[in-house]
Amino acid sequence: MLSKNQIKTLTGLQQKKYRKQHKLFFAEGIKVVQELLNSNFELHQIYTTQDIFITIPRDKVTIITPDELKKISVLTTPQACLALFTMPDEKPVANDGLIVALDDVRDPGNLGTIIRLCDWFGIKHLVCSAECVDVYNPKVVQATMGSLARVNVVYTDLYDYINNSPLPAFGTFMDGRNVYTETLSQNAIIIMGNEANGISAEIESLAKHRIAIPRFGDLQQTESLNVATAAAIILSEFRRSL
Amino acid sequence: MLSKNQIKTLTGLQQKKYRKQHKLFFAEGIKVVQELLNSNFELHQIYTTQDIFITIPRDKVTIITPDELKKISVLTTPQACLALFTMPDEKPVANDGLIVALDDVRDPGNLGTIIRLCDWFGIKHLVCSAECVDVYNPKVVQATMGSLARVNVVYTDLYDYINNSPLPAFGTFMDGRNVYTETLSQNAIIIMGNEANGISAEIESLAKHRIAIPRFGDLQQTESLNVATAAAIILSEFRRSL
Repeated sequence: MLSKNQIKTLTGLQQKKYRKQHKLFFAEGIKVVQELLNSNFELHQIYTTQDIFITIPRDKVTIITPDELKKISVLTTPQACLALFTMPDEKPVANDGLIVALDDVRDPGNLGTIIRLCDWFGIKHLVCSAECVDVYNPKVVQATMGSLARVNVVYTDLYDYINNSPLPAFGTFMDGRNVYTETLSQNAIIIMGNEANGISAEIESLAKHRIAIPRFGDLQQTESLNVATAAAIILSEFRRSL
Repeated sequence: MLSKNQIKTLTGLQQKKYRKQHKLFFAEGIKVVQELLNSNFELHQIYTTQDIFITIPRDKVTIITPDELKKISVLTTPQACLALFTMPDEKPVANDGLIVALDDVRDPGNLGTIIRLCDWFGIKHLVCSAECVDVYNPKVVQATMGSLARVNVVYTDLYDYINNSPLPAFGTFMDGRNVYTETLSQNAIIIMGNEANGISAEIESLAKHRIAIPRFGDLQQTESLNVATAAAIILSEFRRSL
């Protein structure tokens, strides 16, 4: 049973300022919740219509009705449970290996997909400019499908980060050098840009290595690739050379 | 000015059965509409709040109010115009080159992204199983960003199509052979499967070449890639060997 106040607090967490204030975020659906339970995330409370979380301490489980779930869910079709987790502290970013850096990526689905790609390709750190969509936005959390548990996402001043990093910076541009034939380092920052405008001029000045995905369709007409599909191809290229 | 009946007809086109009945579909926003106008698609009518289509015959342009646009749009933020086009007849699928085949891909965003990828990689034909989401679904049309004009999308019995094609069939599986090291033909069918279940057993029996994208993350935990990002990597691999 949920009180009016609890519902207000839970729906408040759909907004970034309340997430920051309470240091809490939520995930929905058995699959995503289970992945986060299996990780280092600290569970705050589960709200569920089915008492299926039998290994979880009883004081952390609240059984609710489907109508109550509907009130606190952001999904069109709510999926049995919603769990609150404590926002972890950001961990330091490593100074070696592959690091993905996002310059102003705004779409929650794109960020979620890129986190899933980092997980697949064994990339442990994702550095986001302050303008990027919040990783604890419920739509991002859902789109990561649990990969969030395995990728350290850090928000910072991207210019300062790249400028002070010992790693070489690779930027993806329409007019860069063919990524299929470039020598790609296994210790590098890979920068992907905003959905509409690509990488900003300020960040571009730091991208010493300009790469591009060759285009095979009609050169006059083909639309650019979406940032998440471009990231898929670029990350695959970096790893395939291993 | 739109009559009640016109609004009913236009909103009816959000449903597949009315699109089939009228042989019409719609696109929204200046960018997508302009791309389709520049292609072989036959314009039926433009509904626009701004008279910016000055090269279009006057009897094809209807000026409407923002309130009217809101009534016929499927976008949360309607974008100045909505245009009806005649559904083209499906063209025959070529017997050479690369063909992408989709086995039961249900998500409109995924189909739209895959059409955009086909366009980028110069793949002219996309063969869909009958269960795939309709390519003229408004969400698919929007997600293609105009690439729809350059890719022939055909719905058919996928088993019969692959079985009768002279082209070798490559299927993407979790346990396939490393796509980075396989010999990939420039004349092939590339099969991608359903979001939840992958390629069906029936179609799998026809996929003589089983390929996979190597995984670099934690092998026990990482979630599989989304079908559109997997398609991005697979299509890139086929083309990079050119």
